[in-house]
Amino acid sequence: MALYSALFYSNAVEEILSDAQWLQQMLRFEASLAQAQARQEIIPSSAAELINACCQAHYLDQENLCADIRLGGNAAIPLVKQLTRIVKNNQPEAAKYVHLGATSQDVVDTATVLQIQVYSAWLIPQLKKLLAALLALSKAHRSTVMIGRTLLQQARPITFGLKVALWADGLWRSLQRLEQGKSRWQTLQLSGAVGSGNSFLSVAIQEDIAEQLQLELGASWQTQRDGLVEWASVLGILSGSLGKIAKDISLLMQTEIAEVFEGAAEGKGGSSTMPHKRNPVTCAAILANATRTPHLVATMHTTLLQEHERSAGLWHAEWETLQTLMGLVGGSLEKTVDLIENLEVHAHAMKANLEKTNGLIYAENLTFALAETLGKSQAHEWVEKACKQAISQQKHLKEWVMETDVCQQINLESVFSAETSIGNSLAILDTIHQKIKL
Amino acid sequence: MALYSALFYSNAVEEILSDAQWLQQMLRFEASLAQAQARQEIIPSSAAELINACCQAHYLDQENLCADIRLGGNAAIPLVKQLTRIVKNNQPEAAKYVHLGATSQDVVDTATVLQIQVYSAWLIPQLKKLLAALLALSKAHRSTVMIGRTLLQQARPITFGLKVALWADGLWRSLQRLEQGKSRWQTLQLSGAVGSGNSFLSVAIQEDIAEQLQLELGASWQTQRDGLVEWASVLGILSGSLGKIAKDISLLMQTEIAEVFEGAAEGKGGSSTMPHKRNPVTCAAILANATRTPHLVATMHTTLLQEHERSAGLWHAEWETLQTLMGLVGGSLEKTVDLIENLEVHAHAMKANLEKTNGLIYAENLTFALAETLGKSQAHEWVEKACKQAISQQKHLKEWVMETDVCQQINLESVFSAETSIGNSLAILDTIHQKIKL
Amino acid sequence: MALYSALFYSNAVEEILSDAQWLQQMLRFEASLAQAQARQEIIPSSAAELINACCQAHYLDQENLCADIRLGGNAAIPLVKQLTRIVKNNQPEAAKYVHLGATSQDVVDTATVLQIQVYSAWLIPQLKKLLAALLALSKAHRSTVMIGRTLLQQARPITFGLKVALWADGLWRSLQRLEQGKSRWQTLQLSGAVGSGNSFLSVAIQEDIAEQLQLELGASWQTQRDGLVEWASVLGILSGSLGKIAKDISLLMQTEIAEVFEGAAEGKGGSSTMPHKRNPVTCAAILANATRTPHLVATMHTTLLQEHERSAGLWHAEWETLQTLMGLVGGSLEKTVDLIENLEVHAHAMKANLEKTNGLIYAENLTFALAETLGKSQAHEWVEKACKQAISQQKHLKEWVMETDVCQQINLESVFSAETSIGNSLAILDTIHQKIKL
Amino acid sequence: MALYSALFYSNAVEEILSDAQWLQQMLRFEASLAQAQARQEIIPSSAAELINACCQAHYLDQENLCADIRLGGNAAIPLVKQLTRIVKNNQPEAAKYVHLGATSQDVVDTATVLQIQVYSAWLIPQLKKLLAALLALSKAHRSTVMIGRTLLQQARPITFGLKVALWADGLWRSLQRLEQGKSRWQTLQLSGAVGSGNSFLSVAIQEDIAEQLQLELGASWQTQRDGLVEWASVLGILSGSLGKIAKDISLLMQTEIAEVFEGAAEGKGGSSTMPHKRNPVTCAAILANATRTPHLVATMHTTLLQEHERSAGLWHAEWETLQTLMGLVGGSLEKTVDLIENLEVHAHAMKANLEKTNGLIYAENLTFALAETLGKSQAHEWVEKACKQAISQQKHLKEWVMETDVCQQINLESVFSAETSIGNSLAILDTIHQKIKL
Repeated sequence: MALYSALFYSNAVEEILSDAQWLQQMLRFEASLAQAQARQEIIPSSAAELINACCQAHYLDQENLCADIRLGGNAAIPLVKQLTRIVKNNQPEAAKYVHLGATSQDVVDTATVLQIQVYSAWLIPQLKKLLAALLALSKAHRSTVMIGRTLLQQARPITFGLKVALWADGLWRSLQRLEQGKSRWQTLQLSGAVGSGNSFLSVAIQEDIAEQLQLELGASWQTQRDGLVEWASVLGILSGSLGKIAKDISLLMQTEIAEVFEGAAEGKGGSSTMPHKRNPVTCAAILANATRTPHLVATMHTTLLQEHERSAGLWHAEWETLQTLMGLVGGSLEKTVDLIENLEVHAHAMKANLEKTNGLIYAENLTFALAETLGKSQAHEWVEKACKQAISQQKHLKEWVMETDVCQQINLESVFSAETSIGNSLAILDTIHQKIKL
Repeated sequence: MALYSALFYSNAVEEILSDAQWLQQMLRFEASLAQAQARQEIIPSSAAELINACCQAHYLDQENLCADIRLGGNAAIPLVKQLTRIVKNNQPEAAKYVHLGATSQDVVDTATVLQIQVYSAWLIPQLKKLLAALLALSKAHRSTVMIGRTLLQQARPITFGLKVALWADGLWRSLQRLEQGKSRWQTLQLSGAVGSGNSFLSVAIQEDIAEQLQLELGASWQTQRDGLVEWASVLGILSGSLGKIAKDISLLMQTEIAEVFEGAAEGKGGSSTMPHKRNPVTCAAILANATRTPHLVATMHTTLLQEHERSAGLWHAEWETLQTLMGLVGGSLEKTVDLIENLEVHAHAMKANLEKTNGLIYAENLTFALAETLGKSQAHEWVEKACKQAISQQKHLKEWVMETDVCQQINLESVFSAETSIGNSLAILDTIHQKIKL
Repeated sequence: MALYSALFYSNAVEEILSDAQWLQQMLRFEASLAQAQARQEIIPSSAAELINACCQAHYLDQENLCADIRLGGNAAIPLVKQLTRIVKNNQPEAAKYVHLGATSQDVVDTATVLQIQVYSAWLIPQLKKLLAALLALSKAHRSTVMIGRTLLQQARPITFGLKVALWADGLWRSLQRLEQGKSRWQTLQLSGAVGSGNSFLSVAIQEDIAEQLQLELGASWQTQRDGLVEWASVLGILSGSLGKIAKDISLLMQTEIAEVFEGAAEGKGGSSTMPHKRNPVTCAAILANATRTPHLVATMHTTLLQEHERSAGLWHAEWETLQTLMGLVGGSLEKTVDLIENLEVHAHAMKANLEKTNGLIYAENLTFALAETLGKSQAHEWVEKACKQAISQQKHLKEWVMETDVCQQINLESVFSAETSIGNSLAILDTIHQKIKL
Repeated sequence: MALYSALFYSNAVEEILSDAQWLQQMLRFEASLAQAQARQEIIPSSAAELINACCQAHYLDQENLCADIRLGGNAAIPLVKQLTRIVKNNQPEAAKYVHLGATSQDVVDTATVLQIQVYSAWLIPQLKKLLAALLALSKAHRSTVMIGRTLLQQARPITFGLKVALWADGLWRSLQRLEQGKSRWQTLQLSGAVGSGNSFLSVAIQEDIAEQLQLELGASWQTQRDGLVEWASVLGILSGSLGKIAKDISLLMQTEIAEVFEGAAEGKGGSSTMPHKRNPVTCAAILANATRTPHLVATMHTTLLQEHERSAGLWHAEWETLQTLMGLVGGSLEKTVDLIENLEVHAHAMKANLEKTNGLIYAENLTFALAETLGKSQAHEWVEKACKQAISQQKHLKEWVMETDVCQQINLESVFSAETSIGNSLAILDTIHQKIKL
């Protein structure tokens, strides 16, 4: 859908995922096959050179190709047919060496993996860029106090730096997954019609091609799609972790909270008739993507039950699903980088919101302070009553308790201070910063 | 993905779902709004006429529009902006009457519903065409005996006509759903920013527009998306019912079964190196679609939890999801019509496969026949032993039992006849044919 | 999971869905089959009476039954075995009339439908109860003004009564779906091994049983599962509509917004250490359920592709999925009734929050008021500037503009009044109230 | 659902996932917390010993606990309440040291992780057992020729040993995932109400508990659920890979193919009235599970968007979802071990089915053989015509071509031999066997 290409997607990624690029990846496979077979003296070098030269996506008649996909049932059949004709037009003899010994699924699957390779080469640096932006933001707000919220209720103070560091912590694990899992999905597919290989697809040829394309070697995964499904799952997790950031920011942007804002831009997220609005439009896009990706992941999981040596339908269900998933995740990542790099943080609003409960968020502090003299359970009871009184009298808890005898010994400044109520926030933040090496 | 447009989709439907058509639906909304407001004397007639004349998708700068969607967060904002400029260029005064009192969601949601309306006008006749094709096929093979299979095992005979009639029975209910549910999803959205309406959107104006666009009237469904989710569910069910047909046909096309085949076409489903293959490529496409649609339905269900008066993300997640779902279902339906209209039925193979178990599928018949004399439980025991004997001697059950004393009184021709073993197949088939009125 | 039975589920529904009740529904099928066959003189009346008397779930050895399900692959096989033995123990001759002509799927599917029937008899009154509670709440707050929010930002005023009425509007459509779709899913399954029926399952017998069990008659739906999937989809939509209510309430309960609250109860949603917290625990449960149900709906959609005359796996995947779905929806509905009946509405907080933007939410009103004298576009420009000034001077917009010349003619009380800014809220609300007949 | 516990689940796993075991895991957390705090001299040793002694699930009043979960919204609140009372009954003073500094989510999340730990200790050996069974089966049938099938059509020969080795290859990667990902999900949760920790939860205490429970240390993952979602994804992939095996076996068990069978057992998968049936009941259960698991994985992915420091609903949606997922995967794995260890392989049927196409599956061999003399394209054309002739004359291709001049030089025995048509099957198989170290 071109209409929403700028809203949900990334231009750079859409280019990688374009039909033209994908056809080129299929042709890269064909070229590398011919070259390997020439080096193993299975086909003449001149034929391999010609095939290689003909492997240019712009030589293809893409319209006919789309039409023929309907008849053949996959993109490889018409592509090989067209490539063969192009080669034949140059040198009739060489045509017979095109795609020698390979099957449609070898082409399609390897092209998919090559596309993933190019996409990963975009994704991983972007993810590192995001991590760097998060660490910078976290560092800048290391000690900016704000309220932590559980079940959407104010709970106890944290720092905004910690919140951001924890976002980074989850994304850091996504980076690990991308790196650790790679060898399971970035694997050459080259095993002929039924996965058994043949004399044109010897180990030497497989090694040669894997070397050319920088792919792993392995047995046929024609109907063992776990690697691809892992890839999809890893992307889905990344999408969700980005969505979690967008969710938090969109909630913090609520008119009544107003602690952070998406960076402003001419015409962005505003409303001419509602001048107070700062719509979280970037967050909405990331959240929309994160709403869709779990179901694309599920689709991929559903395709695991591929029959025998090639499936009638489940293989086909992967193609567009994976494309859309990669597109959405690419879009979300690019947008989150933009979101974080331009985030407006309103530390004063964070500070102000800490006062919304009239001191009740510090009740636990008070209990601990009193426990030393009263004992824990009595302290607890006393504070509970104090809170009720303060609420019914619409007083700040601090004001109410400072007049009581019981609290004369207590350092109420400290008890009712956000800065001293953040637990180990700073230490945890520092540990995360030390752990993430980019 | 243009690459797979002919494989998974329908050209006619992709045209309906195209960006150009969708923009035109948004413009139809704007035009009808202006005209209704003119009739209610809220805006001048001349302005309404001019707005109406300017509501042409080809006047829009689509590239800029896509770019601006990113900033505004939906398609309505830049569309209204462009439309206003176009009107202004003609008559500056009239520009202020564009989109008067409406909100972005009014435009987007009503355009979606208009798209559904056009799509339904394609879908329902196609579904009727499919039902007609199924009834014709069912009638032609009313008495063609074949084995019924449970858990992929041969069970007892049916007729192919019954199998096809049952396919039609399920699709008939899809037709009912499309017709019964229509009033819940084909509803005008026109209630302003927060669903409360305003003085520019009076009941009279709503009625006028609903009349123009042939839509239902109702309260704001800005965050009550159940109608749209019902629509998606109904489409998903249709996709699955089509997939069930494709599943059965692909299984019946197995080399070892070979009872039906997709119609042959030059270059379709064959393999130059494997001349015996008749790949179920159309079935594979329908099955691929039916593999994906449940997850698109689930995405739509997930979007029900839209916050307050407009959601930040869940609304946005609907847009492409619904488009893809409608596209895939359209594709599947068109392909199933083609599949059924051109299906090759090999009645002789059906007949031959009935003999695969050497008469064991008739064991139950034999038990019933013997029960009259032996009593049910003794008959059962006797037949069980007879079957074991026949299997171990690799004999046809009929041959084995005809030599026994016990079976001398039995009409073995009838017991071992598929034609007399089809139960109420014909009556059931006839009932279905009578029920389905097209 | 007994552990969470009170949190996510309804006791009444769990009882309906219990194993014991389900076994009883299977036995009801067997009893009604025997009675119908007796009336058609296919089996002796005395046998039918005995079978009927033996059809008591507490006669079954449930432990053995569970173990045998593993071998047979469904619940009907061991149930019929046990029932046959029980009958035999009473009268050996009668045993042969148990389950005559029926297949496992007849029992399992009809029992499922009977369970749905009992469940619906609970669900529909509960849904009406909820609608009544919503209408009462909506009426009580017909004119209670509050801010409408789009993309989580304050937009324009509505009334709380309208918000609640719109919740009811969506649920009203769920009620329609439950009633309209019923004839498609509440259908007797009785067609023997391969859906073709047999002489023991004549039309007369089918009619008799359908009459006994108050079910629809229809052809075999052994592998045409669209009715069941529609049922699941309708439940899923209901779950989502309930979830939308819980989502709104949980957002309105945020400490910084505090406009409504779940009813308080001893020990509910509070925190002894955080006395200010009012955790939305009931909302959280309803939201958790609504998070899970779309995926259970999707599972049901995935099961549509059932092979031939009985599926190897997809049928089996339905059983627990449907149970869990019905359980979660039952739980959500019961909890939402409780939520709405006990909702605390803080009208003063709603009023106070309308002031959070210092009058900016009324900017559009001001524009319209000025447009009469300045013309629309100049009014717009002027108000935009005024808003910027008011924001930068941290003044209420009303205060800022009342000192300007331009606004001397304007009724600023009306412009800056929530009550006059609610559009057609009251009329829309009234229309919904008139429409919903319980 | 006890009813289907033996059909879809594993007894051993259900025991691990039982409420009693889960409560015990929560208590293990509480005990280890107290012990660590005693060692750090935060609480008295005697109190820690008493708490430890009281941490027995059978001391709990489970019925009350379930009821209280509804009020508190999670299992930790009532558990801590009951534990405190039990401790108090023994020694009132010690009660105040229960659960010191921890939050509900610390208990629930760590108990979940401990349950995963115990489950993994069952799962991984079972998976190795399955791999061993697969390797043994693969070895036994290393050279057993059978037809490879693509799109459910006969394609070219492979060996059954290769097919089984490829099943093992995919599962081997699941083993890698379980081991590599472990450090990301088996992480202690202990960071207090808002993830910031506090003075009772120092690094030393965290280290002590992690040591006791054999868990990883890390920052709060209260709303960074990627680890848990990865765990779910890894299980989902395993379920799908097992489902693929079941899918293949169920297809190979078709009456018309009959190449392998589930091991027979008294009363298993048979039908008294249809003696020829060998229902794939174990496969059906595994397939049913694999149909459901993708949607449970998707549910987990959907829960990633948890708000702020604790979610209102998404956290809660995880609990039963993860339990069901682990239960289904455990069941599938145990059942697949049984399936493979008892699989009946009918090598003669595999051999016989290779003849179903009358030699057409060897057409490609013939083309290659003729290419040496005729050149590839002429050979191809010639063979295509030969196939058509053989088909129309209903002759075996070998018989037809042996009478032609062209084929006089060809070794037709070799061309039409399955054994020489298996490509690199044996080498690939051997490589897989060498790779998998158990």
